[in-house]
Amino acid sequence: MCGITGYIGNKKAYPIILNGLKRLEYRGYDSAGIVLNENGTFKLRKTKGSVSDLIAKCKDLNSEATVGIGHTRWATHGVPSDINAHPHISNNGKIAIIHNGIIENYATLKIMLTSKGYTFKSETDTEILVNLIQYMQETQNLDLATAVRYALNEVIGAYSIAVIEVDQPQEIVVARLSSPLAIGIGENEYFIASDASPFIEFTNEVVYLEDGEMATITLKGVDVYKIKDNSKVNPQIHELKTSLEKIEKGGYEHFMLKEIHEQPRSIMDTMRGRLLVEEDIIQMAGIWDYQEKFLNAERIIIISCGTSWHAGLVGEYLIEDLARIPVEVEYASEFRYRNPIITDKDIVIAISQSGETADSIAALKLAKEKGAFIYGICNVIDSSIARLTDAGSYTHAGPEIGVASTKAFTAQLALLAMIALKLAKHKGTISKERFNSLIIELETIPERVAEVIKNTESQIKKIAELYAGAGNFLYLGRGYNYPIALEGALKLKEISYIHAEGYPAAEMKHGPIALIDENMPVVVIAPKKGYYDKIVSNIQEINSRKGKVIAIVTQGDTVVKDMVTESIEIPDVSEYFTPILSVIPLQLLAYYIAVLRDVNVDQPRNLAKSVTVE
Amino acid sequence: MCGITGYIGNKKAYPIILNGLKRLEYRGYDSAGIVLNENGTFKLRKTKGSVSDLIAKCKDLNSEATVGIGHTRWATHGVPSDINAHPHISNNGKIAIIHNGIIENYATLKIMLTSKGYTFKSETDTEILVNLIQYMQETQNLDLATAVRYALNEVIGAYSIAVIEVDQPQEIVVARLSSPLAIGIGENEYFIASDASPFIEFTNEVVYLEDGEMATITLKGVDVYKIKDNSKVNPQIHELKTSLEKIEKGGYEHFMLKEIHEQPRSIMDTMRGRLLVEEDIIQMAGIWDYQEKFLNAERIIIISCGTSWHAGLVGEYLIEDLARIPVEVEYASEFRYRNPIITDKDIVIAISQSGETADSIAALKLAKEKGAFIYGICNVIDSSIARLTDAGSYTHAGPEIGVASTKAFTAQLALLAMIALKLAKHKGTISKERFNSLIIELETIPERVAEVIKNTESQIKKIAELYAGAGNFLYLGRGYNYPIALEGALKLKEISYIHAEGYPAAEMKHGPIALIDENMPVVVIAPKKGYYDKIVSNIQEINSRKGKVIAIVTQGDTVVKDMVTESIEIPDVSEYFTPILSVIPLQLLAYYIAVLRDVNVDQPRNLAKSVTVE
Repeated sequence: MCGITGYIGNKKAYPIILNGLKRLEYRGYDSAGIVLNENGTFKLRKTKGSVSDLIAKCKDLNSEATVGIGHTRWATHGVPSDINAHPHISNNGKIAIIHNGIIENYATLKIMLTSKGYTFKSETDTEILVNLIQYMQETQNLDLATAVRYALNEVIGAYSIAVIEVDQPQEIVVARLSSPLAIGIGENEYFIASDASPFIEFTNEVVYLEDGEMATITLKGVDVYKIKDNSKVNPQIHELKTSLEKIEKGGYEHFMLKEIHEQPRSIMDTMRGRLLVEEDIIQMAGIWDYQEKFLNAERIIIISCGTSWHAGLVGEYLIEDLARIPVEVEYASEFRYRNPIITDKDIVIAISQSGETADSIAALKLAKEKGAFIYGICNVIDSSIARLTDAGSYTHAGPEIGVASTKAFTAQLALLAMIALKLAKHKGTISKERFNSLIIELETIPERVAEVIKNTESQIKKIAELYAGAGNFLYLGRGYNYPIALEGALKLKEISYIHAEGYPAAEMKHGPIALIDENMPVVVIAPKKGYYDKIVSNIQEINSRKGKVIAIVTQGDTVVKDMVTESIEIPDVSEYFTPILSVIPLQLLAYYIAVLRDVNVDQPRNLAKSVTVE
Repeated sequence: MCGITGYIGNKKAYPIILNGLKRLEYRGYDSAGIVLNENGTFKLRKTKGSVSDLIAKCKDLNSEATVGIGHTRWATHGVPSDINAHPHISNNGKIAIIHNGIIENYATLKIMLTSKGYTFKSETDTEILVNLIQYMQETQNLDLATAVRYALNEVIGAYSIAVIEVDQPQEIVVARLSSPLAIGIGENEYFIASDASPFIEFTNEVVYLEDGEMATITLKGVDVYKIKDNSKVNPQIHELKTSLEKIEKGGYEHFMLKEIHEQPRSIMDTMRGRLLVEEDIIQMAGIWDYQEKFLNAERIIIISCGTSWHAGLVGEYLIEDLARIPVEVEYASEFRYRNPIITDKDIVIAISQSGETADSIAALKLAKEKGAFIYGICNVIDSSIARLTDAGSYTHAGPEIGVASTKAFTAQLALLAMIALKLAKHKGTISKERFNSLIIELETIPERVAEVIKNTESQIKKIAELYAGAGNFLYLGRGYNYPIALEGALKLKEISYIHAEGYPAAEMKHGPIALIDENMPVVVIAPKKGYYDKIVSNIQEINSRKGKVIAIVTQGDTVVKDMVTESIEIPDVSEYFTPILSVIPLQLLAYYIAVLRDVNVDQPRNLAKSVTVE
């Protein structure tokens, strides 16, 4: 996730900013940069790579500047490169910006600015924004803050930004919408950052901008006002009572828990600029540019590993169900070593959070050799899979630091739902009305996810206490929630080291039911959907063998609730979207059990975040 | 499996024979029958259904006859019905036969006999045989025994038979090839049966016919001689020192162990009359009659549950690899409840031992509605799936009584190998030479299976002692042996109640490896085949986490053997056939661990032999 930081005061700015960037490294990034305003001249350094690489590039800097901003970039628009790294400078060389977030309508803005003669060096949405600010300033003769405000009122998207102007060396303008921004209040000095970690040793007074607010920071103080109408806001100053480690984890005990909680946002980010409900479309260039391929595909083969493989299984249900294209899901490791039947009428989709999974890369190369059209779904921009594929879509979940994948998984589910719906619309396999009602519903899913977290977390903590001592778990689900049973079991396995196994519920009778006795907790995903009656029977079978059932049920369910030991409610949504909700309690359950078992949740034994070996 | 019994002496024959049939019920059967020779008249009763049904039909019998034979039938040729039930009578009404086994060249013999004016009431191969005996007798003016001998010399197949003639009321002729036959020696009375259970209370002296032997039994005694050349044999009389229960289990402690040991025969039976190496063909009417369908299929979808689903996964590898037809394997329960994409260019194959699996039946019906060609692979003749499908092949493994499937599974694998090879030959996706060398090798697989059992059983007993206390197991395999990892884990789960889980080996790094510590035994199937290097790496990864590895390796392997705690050798065969061998030690391991844990191996808790509910 991008990190921003900045300083205005009486000290040398650049050591403070570089130190701040080091502090922000934990967020994950692929390039870094800094700009200082030294007596009316910008000193700019930026590079693909690490903050250490940036520091090396700053060796000759030794700047006396007391104002500056710095950035760690996690690529969203445009690959990681020196040019795409922030800060970005406006065409007239006078305005510098750093930006965290996504400008959804950047394409439209770019056309407008190009028509006015603006040119762009990078592929970023950020460079559009800084030039829009210049354009506002020049055409309407505005000061920096007003120009920023005008520009932001033209923007659709999410952002936190910091802007400085070469001619106003004693000012930083910041703004926020959906992306955090903290202002540290020191003695005649001010700090800005994505979180308080870069300035924790300098001050314990902090102002957190709210969504839709911006601020002008000078040596005289901080003025906060609304982006929309310039109305003044009285900022609340918070006292910082936390550790560096806690800040890095967003106040959570572990990155995994932070990432679980980030899911309403990460799913939203995945849909941002794509799911356009008002226009009644799903906009995905990767699909649209190759729509012939997709609409005429005889078969889609999804290859992946681990958690992404589970997302692939949900994808199979979604695409077959909605778009009526046969889908096969393969373990990448199995696919690559046999002699798979692949033709140029096949589309092979690889799903990988890191985009670096060795087996998936090898499988993709094999499919490419055999003439298939290959498509990537990755979270890391410009990763190996992203570079290898003919086209693709990024999940935009932000960097995932916990080894057990959570937010990348739900982002994959949201993306696959959009792909399935888009293909279904263009193939005409669902009606316009159905498409419309489904995208309206999909847009509300992030809120539903937030509800699930809010409503179930304390209950799940208690359940975790009851079952943390279990030696084994079974997870059962049917249909769309069969892959979620696998995923729930994998989460528990990964971080609690409890032997948990997922199964399609009906298969239980073909063997696993022999395991069930009073010592076997069984998690059953039982939303009130198509398979409800069958899953009720499965629960009865478990009950009659004295297994303990923890059920995920639809809000208001009474039948299952009366039958089981524990029931956890999720909102009632279309079956297609239930996996995005039902997996949340299972992530939380695995997390809280692991914590009680004193496991290093973020780095469980034996596991690597990205499996780059075969 | 068919059971035969008979009596000749001074007592009333029919109560002894009916009692004997009751004793044979454990073998599994679908119909029963009896024939008595009462002073030169045959008294025949037979019925589809149980021995109790037969007894009901014998109420009016009250025959004084002292000679007779009886049969319980497990259908192989022709559905279970009154007409197909044994005994069968020759066209002239003078010869009656009961038969256990398969006459492979029955079709040729039938054509010959039909040309001579013979007619047939039933669909059985047995009725051909009894008329061949009549034909020999009439055309060459032979006594019964010689006619039987001449007839058997024309026959290809496996059998144990008992024959009586209406005009020779004091004689039973019996013969055996590959199917057991015991003769009980009483005082002026003799008993015959598939095993000693029908006559255990009457005598403890027994002669077991050897393969290729026949005997004439009269009140004067038993004459044994070779079928081939009539040379006399001095029979060895054994003293019976066993219990009824032990006889039923063929001397094994449990049906499951008996069935494991039966696999060389049951696999051979599955290939019998189909794998014709000398003619360089695989003869399978179910495929041949619909070769257009098969050769033009765009996709084969295999649906099944439990152990049969694992066979389906191996089938996917075999058919894709050899015949280059895309194959998808689905859980029947998942397939039926979604809205699967099926067209009339698809072939749907259901695999089910019982042919009664509820979810598979429902899935087949759905596929049929959607226009697919549906094919059945079952073990039970005329089962629901056999009746429902457009065509199919039976596995001929004989009735499986242990709830945990063993011999039905390897029979499924052998059948799928034949289907894949046959399709490959006709599609031209493998060369004639390769086809020829593979079918030559496939024919030797039953011997290889016998070797595995012989060479590994005592070693596995010892390994079982070391691991019987384990709480968890992992099973890993790649490629053709990935489904065997799943199957090995399922076996252990079913009968030992140990939580065992199978995984494709490469997926271990995506989660399950977190479970591995010094308490986790890991069974790795590591034959020296295509994936060998990769699986060696996987074993190293387990070793470095202190997991205990039990490896299944190729004879003569040294690399893996040096790395692991235990290694079990299987013969070196083509990769296609390794699953048939590698599963055997896993069946034995599950069995011996379960025995040590004192589980009711043949009827583990919570499980039914055939899952006829949803």
